[in-house]
Amino acid sequence: MRAVDIIMKKRSGLGLSKAEIEFFIRGYVEGSIPDYQASALLMAIYFKGMEASETAFLTMAMLDSGETMDLSGLAGPFVDKHSTGGVGDKISLPLAPMVAACGAMVPMMSGRALGHTGGTLDKLESIPGYRTDLTLEAFREGLLAEGFAMTGQSARVAPADKKLYALRDVTATVESVPLITASILSKKVAEGAGSLVFDVKCGPGAFMKTRAEARALATSLVNTGGSMGRKVVALITDMSEPLGYGVGNFFEIEETLDCLEGRGPEDVMALSLRLGAWMLVAGGLAATPEAGEARCRKAIASGEALNRFYANVKRQGGDLAKLAALRGTWRSPHQAELRADSSGYIASIDAWKIGLAGVLLGVGRNTTADKVFPDVGFIFEKKKGDPVNRGGLVARVYGKDEESLAPAMELARAALRVSPSAPAASPLILEELSAS
Amino acid sequence: MRAVDIIMKKRSGLGLSKAEIEFFIRGYVEGSIPDYQASALLMAIYFKGMEASETAFLTMAMLDSGETMDLSGLAGPFVDKHSTGGVGDKISLPLAPMVAACGAMVPMMSGRALGHTGGTLDKLESIPGYRTDLTLEAFREGLLAEGFAMTGQSARVAPADKKLYALRDVTATVESVPLITASILSKKVAEGAGSLVFDVKCGPGAFMKTRAEARALATSLVNTGGSMGRKVVALITDMSEPLGYGVGNFFEIEETLDCLEGRGPEDVMALSLRLGAWMLVAGGLAATPEAGEARCRKAIASGEALNRFYANVKRQGGDLAKLAALRGTWRSPHQAELRADSSGYIASIDAWKIGLAGVLLGVGRNTTADKVFPDVGFIFEKKKGDPVNRGGLVARVYGKDEESLAPAMELARAALRVSPSAPAASPLILEELSAS
Repeated sequence: MRAVDIIMKKRSGLGLSKAEIEFFIRGYVEGSIPDYQASALLMAIYFKGMEASETAFLTMAMLDSGETMDLSGLAGPFVDKHSTGGVGDKISLPLAPMVAACGAMVPMMSGRALGHTGGTLDKLESIPGYRTDLTLEAFREGLLAEGFAMTGQSARVAPADKKLYALRDVTATVESVPLITASILSKKVAEGAGSLVFDVKCGPGAFMKTRAEARALATSLVNTGGSMGRKVVALITDMSEPLGYGVGNFFEIEETLDCLEGRGPEDVMALSLRLGAWMLVAGGLAATPEAGEARCRKAIASGEALNRFYANVKRQGGDLAKLAALRGTWRSPHQAELRADSSGYIASIDAWKIGLAGVLLGVGRNTTADKVFPDVGFIFEKKKGDPVNRGGLVARVYGKDEESLAPAMELARAALRVSPSAPAASPLILEELSAS
Repeated sequence: MRAVDIIMKKRSGLGLSKAEIEFFIRGYVEGSIPDYQASALLMAIYFKGMEASETAFLTMAMLDSGETMDLSGLAGPFVDKHSTGGVGDKISLPLAPMVAACGAMVPMMSGRALGHTGGTLDKLESIPGYRTDLTLEAFREGLLAEGFAMTGQSARVAPADKKLYALRDVTATVESVPLITASILSKKVAEGAGSLVFDVKCGPGAFMKTRAEARALATSLVNTGGSMGRKVVALITDMSEPLGYGVGNFFEIEETLDCLEGRGPEDVMALSLRLGAWMLVAGGLAATPEAGEARCRKAIASGEALNRFYANVKRQGGDLAKLAALRGTWRSPHQAELRADSSGYIASIDAWKIGLAGVLLGVGRNTTADKVFPDVGFIFEKKKGDPVNRGGLVARVYGKDEESLAPAMELARAALRVSPSAPAASPLILEELSAS
């Protein structure tokens, strides 16, 4: 078998066999197949795509390139959620304890902020003392006690994905549905999830800008997961404006607490409940999403979800007293205000521009070396559809320093559109896909 | 400027600017742009193509990566011919002295046999003593004296092409019209040709198997050359059966002498005359191809073309006495015969299979390290359309050793098709393209 023949085959639009994909991925990880052949294959895949079966072979080859999480001895069912990344997307934080309170085990491995999107780990680490570098033993203990635990992705999981992702990043081959699918699925399956719910974001603040792109990825995730024998559900959800009112690491922890107390922002509550409902269905703990949603509501109303969140914070080193004291007060002194320049209704708040402004303020990072800050970002007073007067406050803006405010405010002003009449209501959850 | 953005742009189907192409090629040759980004760009070009202007920018960038032949002080006009490679294609050998005899200067830099195609240098070097590693000074002296000289390609010409070609070979990106165009044109222009005539081979024995592929390359060569200010003509010619009766290094020298004596095989004579005619037109030495052809015929009839060939052989170290003595007699002792297994007409002799058989016999090489032999190959007795009896001799076959004969004969038998009725006549010259 020769790498060039495999490239040629894909270039010609033919499907690759399991053996060919395994040969290529193994060779690439071991170094016998060089980067320049891998990038040529990636570009050919970008143009010619992959069948669900090929994507499954690729996912399995990437999965097999590294270790898988050992969850033996734990009861399960193991259910996880993955979002393709958005702005103000703190859904994982209320979701995990809520679903755990319903009897599922949520082995959650999260990433960090990069580019315009935030990162669950950065949000959690804004809680003083909270640690996300758990050992396997600590992770298993957390799962056993609270039904969920929050940790970073191990470098030993799917090294093929890490190597390929770095290559895709510099060869303009990121935006390929089968490559994205295999990248996401290989990690999530390696991390021990038996069933998976995907939140495929769609809109200006998402990687998938159009409905067609989002649907292609959602379909691929569901089909590929299915052909690997996993229960996979994918929701396509709107990411045209930021989720919730807070965009900022600690601000989103505050909003998480609001949600777990049953009084979070309408959109964050709705999305958490729906994703949670599908996780229960995928995990076999509810027959229908409606039944699942009812159970999730109960987990909130009973306080069990909140209790589990606090128990997790304590277990992972977080200081509950400091969390309580800082809540609602931890704000950077470098402040500005985003105000409406005309009267009317908020027509849109462009999530992409707010995400980029967030990077400038210190919420996120442009490169993995950048430092992030807990007390910076946006706290919105208004959302899409709200009436506003000229000069009325739309958001409070907090920066890591004074210099960060002006360029961030410029982006924020560009993100805000006020119109004389109320905009049409648009649904948050656009589509739900599951293998039947 | 970033390499990844250039890849992304081409991947999205947009045209690249002169500055972007120069940046990429210069960076690649210097090593600041790695192979893996170059191969990704090559694959994107494979799928998205290039406009004639982009191909011209690419050609010029590759040209500028190395030295150009210094022909200053020589009068010209400088005209060259390039064939995309075929089997039994010795056309350059009678063509160069013939066109030179008509007043053009032909600075011919040729390649070696590789894969199923023969190489002009290998054929010339089958003449005892003949040297093709000329210094620039010797090359210029030959041009001044005989109007043509034959040498190998300098490593200092278009190093970007050498580096890119090696990469294309292992990344399945060889078959791209703009990349082939830039590769051919950059070398030919660097070698000093003011006007160029291309012989784009089409058929089983050619790189371009179909008429559509051949036309795409011919069109690209003409348009790209035109946008670089060169007069370029391209002929699409048939390569379904080998050209002439001889396929073998010294056998083709013999056939060259036959042609220059005015009694060569019909197809070799016809193609040489037509290509020569267009070279005279491209070089401004004839108003029409018909006028050009008449001049070429005169150069043969007068013996001037033959005289120039012999003068060149002598100048480049060839032993004329040995050439005369070996002519018609230099045959390997390892011989076999290809005979018809039924009576009828020769329907086809597959050039591709004959070319591959030639490699086994020692005519050509699979890798650049392989040795080639002068006295091996095929001497056909029959060509397409000739009547043949069952058991009748179709070709004499000569191998470098006894072991080479059996596998070569197997290919040769598979190449030969005899049919009960005469095949329809097919034209040798399929199309002629020139920028108007």
